[in-house]
Amino acid sequence: MNVALAQIKGFLGNFRETRKQIIQLIKDADGKADFILFPEGGLFGYPPTDFIRNPDFLKKQNREIKKIQNQIPPGLNILLGGFFAEKQHLFNGVVLLRKGNPPLFFKKQFLSNTDVFRESRYFNQGSLKKNFFRWKGNRIQILICEDIFHNPQFPKSDILFCLNSSPYTEDKSLKRFHAVKQLTQKHKCPAVYVNRVGGQGSLIFDGGSFVLNSTGTLKTQCHFFEPDFQIVSLFSKNKKRAISPPPSLPKQREKALILGLQDFCKQTGFEKAHLGLSGGMDSAVVCYLAVQALGAKNVIGFFLPGPFTTNLSRELAEKIATTLNISLKEQNISPIYKMMLTTLFSKKSPENPVTKQNLQARIRALVLTAFGNETKSLLLGTGNKSELACGYSTLYGDLCGGLLPIGDLYKTEVYELARSINKTFPVFPKQLLLRAPSAELSSKQKDSDDLPPYKILDPILKKLLNKKSPHSAKEKEIFHKIFSNEFKRKQAPPLLKISETSFGEEWKFPIAHKFLTD
Amino acid sequence: MNVALAQIKGFLGNFRETRKQIIQLIKDADGKADFILFPEGGLFGYPPTDFIRNPDFLKKQNREIKKIQNQIPPGLNILLGGFFAEKQHLFNGVVLLRKGNPPLFFKKQFLSNTDVFRESRYFNQGSLKKNFFRWKGNRIQILICEDIFHNPQFPKSDILFCLNSSPYTEDKSLKRFHAVKQLTQKHKCPAVYVNRVGGQGSLIFDGGSFVLNSTGTLKTQCHFFEPDFQIVSLFSKNKKRAISPPPSLPKQREKALILGLQDFCKQTGFEKAHLGLSGGMDSAVVCYLAVQALGAKNVIGFFLPGPFTTNLSRELAEKIATTLNISLKEQNISPIYKMMLTTLFSKKSPENPVTKQNLQARIRALVLTAFGNETKSLLLGTGNKSELACGYSTLYGDLCGGLLPIGDLYKTEVYELARSINKTFPVFPKQLLLRAPSAELSSKQKDSDDLPPYKILDPILKKLLNKKSPHSAKEKEIFHKIFSNEFKRKQAPPLLKISETSFGEEWKFPIAHKFLTD
Repeated sequence: MNVALAQIKGFLGNFRETRKQIIQLIKDADGKADFILFPEGGLFGYPPTDFIRNPDFLKKQNREIKKIQNQIPPGLNILLGGFFAEKQHLFNGVVLLRKGNPPLFFKKQFLSNTDVFRESRYFNQGSLKKNFFRWKGNRIQILICEDIFHNPQFPKSDILFCLNSSPYTEDKSLKRFHAVKQLTQKHKCPAVYVNRVGGQGSLIFDGGSFVLNSTGTLKTQCHFFEPDFQIVSLFSKNKKRAISPPPSLPKQREKALILGLQDFCKQTGFEKAHLGLSGGMDSAVVCYLAVQALGAKNVIGFFLPGPFTTNLSRELAEKIATTLNISLKEQNISPIYKMMLTTLFSKKSPENPVTKQNLQARIRALVLTAFGNETKSLLLGTGNKSELACGYSTLYGDLCGGLLPIGDLYKTEVYELARSINKTFPVFPKQLLLRAPSAELSSKQKDSDDLPPYKILDPILKKLLNKKSPHSAKEKEIFHKIFSNEFKRKQAPPLLKISETSFGEEWKFPIAHKFLTD
Repeated sequence: MNVALAQIKGFLGNFRETRKQIIQLIKDADGKADFILFPEGGLFGYPPTDFIRNPDFLKKQNREIKKIQNQIPPGLNILLGGFFAEKQHLFNGVVLLRKGNPPLFFKKQFLSNTDVFRESRYFNQGSLKKNFFRWKGNRIQILICEDIFHNPQFPKSDILFCLNSSPYTEDKSLKRFHAVKQLTQKHKCPAVYVNRVGGQGSLIFDGGSFVLNSTGTLKTQCHFFEPDFQIVSLFSKNKKRAISPPPSLPKQREKALILGLQDFCKQTGFEKAHLGLSGGMDSAVVCYLAVQALGAKNVIGFFLPGPFTTNLSRELAEKIATTLNISLKEQNISPIYKMMLTTLFSKKSPENPVTKQNLQARIRALVLTAFGNETKSLLLGTGNKSELACGYSTLYGDLCGGLLPIGDLYKTEVYELARSINKTFPVFPKQLLLRAPSAELSSKQKDSDDLPPYKILDPILKKLLNKKSPHSAKEKEIFHKIFSNEFKRKQAPPLLKISETSFGEEWKFPIAHKFLTD
C-alpha cells in the first residue's frame, strides 16, 4: 500500500489555485500511490474564520471539490480536508473521493477551542467511531488534528490517517509525534500524519508530516517549513528518504519567522517592506528576517535620529544596512520634535517625562507611515515580546506597523537568534551584541532604568505568561505591569506566533479588571 | 414564596467589593424573601477571561463565597453564579447556599461560543437534568443564560430560576423574554430571570430582570441600564411595581452608551476624558455622551483646525462646547503640518493624496495623545461603524484613543441618536444636522466623494455584516472595501458593543485572504 503525503501550502479562500495544486499532485501520485492525503481545511484554508458562516463560500469550496472529483484516476483514493454542512450544522471534516463512488464524509470529534482556534463557534462535533472506512480488508481510521490528542477511543484499526493544520510552536512537532506514536502502539498499526505548511496571518504551519510504522518508529518525515510531497510504501521495511534531525530552536524560529513574514507579505500583496533601523538589536534582527523573506532590494531601512540618538547607533544602523545590502534613508526628527514641543507646550516643558519620549516615537511613526502611504511597502514593527508584555513601547509610536515579526520573541531570545544567525552569516556586530538596550528617547536612557535586566525579566515573564502566580515582590510588580498594559496590546499590530503564549489571538485578558489589587 | 431579584453590577475580579454588596443585599432580603438570585458569574464577574485559568483567582472567589456562607440567615436560600473546578475541569455554574447545608452546585449545559463569548475555551458542559433541587415539594430548575435558548429538555418543573449575564443588543430583551415565556408555557410554571447590569470593557449588561407567571405573562420587570433590587411574591396575583414600557431604540442606545462609557472610565481609573471636537456630528455626539457619563467639568474638547477646516466647523465646535458647558482648547495644526510636508517631501508634493490627509489626522493624534500623557485623561475616539466598516479613517490618526464610544453606530444611527437627544436637550444645532459629513482633510472634501451617501451605504453594510452575500456591483465593491480594511480594525481602539454585528470580540475575519477575488 502506497500513500502520498501532500504537505501543501494554502491561502484562505484561494479556491482555484489550491484546486489546481491539488489536481497536479493527484496527477503526480497517479499510478504510484493508492492514497493521497491533504491537510485539514483542504481547499478552503485553515482556520476558516467567520467566512465559513457565509454559505456562498462553502458553495465555492464544493464547486472546486466537484472539479477535483472529475479528475480522479481509477485506483487512487483521495482524502481531502474541508468543511461541510448537514441539516443547518457545520462540520470540520474530511472527504474521501474515489472514482465511481459517492464521496464519503468524516467529521472531526474533538474541536479546537483552547488556544488560537474557536471551532465551537462554528462547528458541531462528529464521532470518531464513525470515522473509518475499509480498503482491501483493512479498517482505516480517520483522525483530524485535535482528535489525536484526547486519548481517542475507536475500535482496533489497521491503519491511521491523520489530517492536520497544526501551527508551529516550540516542541509542537514532538507533541504530535508522541500522540500519534501512542496510537500506533495501542493499535499495533502504522499511521500517516499530514500537516499543512506556510503562513496564514499570525500562524505559521510548519509541515513536518510523517509516517510511523506499527511499532511507533519513524519511517519517514517531510521537510519542516517548506512544501513537500512524498510517496511511502506503508508496509515495506525500507525507508524512503533519510530523516534529518530537527534544527536547533533558534534555527527553527528563524525558518518559521522568515516563512511567516514571506507568506504574510504575499497574502497581503506587499512585495516591499520598510522599517526604522535604530542601531539596536530588535530592528537589526527584523531587518535580517525581512531581507531573507523579500530580498535585499525590497527592504528599506530608515535611520531617524533624534536629540538623544548616539553616534554608535548611527554606525550600527549603517553597518547593518551595508552588511544586508539594503538602502538606508535618513531623516532627522529633531527639528520637528522641537517645533512640536514649542507649539504644544510654548516655553514650559511637559510635566510628564513620558510625553516627550512618546512624542519622539510618534514623530518617527509619522515618517514611517507617510513613506508607507507613498510607496506600496509594508511597515514592519520591531517590538519584541518582553516590550509587549511590559507595555514598554509607545502606542501609535514604535508600536506601529502592519506586522510585528519578532513580537513573540523575548528580548533574550532576540539576542539568541542573532547569535545563531551570526554562526552562518555574521550580520550582527559585536558592539551591537554587547551594547545595553536603549530606546534613546531621553538622555543616557537605558531599558534597565525602567525594567529589570532582561536576563532576570524574561524568565519571570515566561513563568507569569504560563498562568503561574507571582510570588516575590518583583514578580508581583511585573505581573501588575503585564496586566495593566493590556490597552496597548489591544491596539498592537499582529505578530507572528511561534510560542504557546503569544500575545495574539490566544491571549484573552480584559483591559479593565480588579484582579491585581483585590 | 418570595424571591429577591438582585440585579447587581460587577467588575471583573472585584471580589471584596462584590462580596460586600452581596452580603448587604442578603441582609436586605432577610425576613422578606425565601430566595435571592444573583447574576451569572457572581463574585468573579463575567466573562471571566483567561484569569479563570489561574487557580489562584478561583481560590479568591471561593474564599469570598465562604465569607458569604457565614452570613446567611436561616430560611434564606442564596443562588449565586460563579465558576467551579471539579477533577481538573472548570464549570460555569451556580451555587445554592443555605444555612446549615453544604453548598449545592449546578453546571451550565449550553456554553456560549457563537458570539462574543468563548466558554468552550475554559469550561466543560454540565447537564440540565441534574440542575434542579426541591423546596417545599417544588421542583426548581436552574438555567444559566444560554441554557434558555436551546429548547432545553428537563423534567416537568414547578419553578424556573434563570441566572444570566446577557449583554445588551437591540431586541435582546425581547429574545430573552420569548425564550423564557416558551419555557413557562411548556412547564406551566413561573420563572425568575435575573440579569447583570453595567459595563465590562466593550460589553454593556442591560439588566431588565423579570418574573413571568405560569401563563407566561410579565409579572414584574427590573429597570434597564441601572442596578435594581425587587422582592416578588411568586404565586400571588398582585404586581409589585408598574412595568414601564421599554424606551425607544435611540433612547436605549443612549442609555447603554452612557452606562458603558461611565463604567469603562471607572474600571480603567479615568475621571476625565478628552476628544477632538471637529465641528462634525460624530465628535459632537461623543462629547454629549462623555458629558452625561463624566460631568461637563471632566470633559475637554480640542478644536484642531488645519488648512482645510472651515469657519462653520469652528462655529459648530464652539457651539457644542458652550451648550455642553465644557472647556474647549484650540491648537492650529497647520504650521506643524506645513513643516512636516517640507521636511519629508522637500519641494515636491507627496504622490499619493492620502499621504497628506493621513499626515493631518496623525498630527492631530499627536496633539491629543500628548495631552493624554500630561493629564490623567482618557482620549475618546470618535469613529463610527460605517467608517470602521469601510476603513474610512486614518490608523494612528483619527482611529486612536482608549475607547470608541460610537464605534458600533452606523453614521445614520449617529444622526438618529442626535435627533433623539435633541428632543429633550437641544444639543445639536440644525446646521450640524444638515451639513454634509466631511473629514476636511483636503479642499472641499466630502465623505460622499469616497463613499456612497450614508443612506445608501448603511443599509448595504447592515446586510453584508449580517453574513449576507453581495449581489449588485455596488454591494460587491463595498464588500471588498469591508474585507480589505481588516488591518485597520485589528488595531482600532475597543468600542462599546450595542449590536449583534459589532467590530469587537465577535468579529473574526482575517487580514489576508482570497475570498474576495477567487
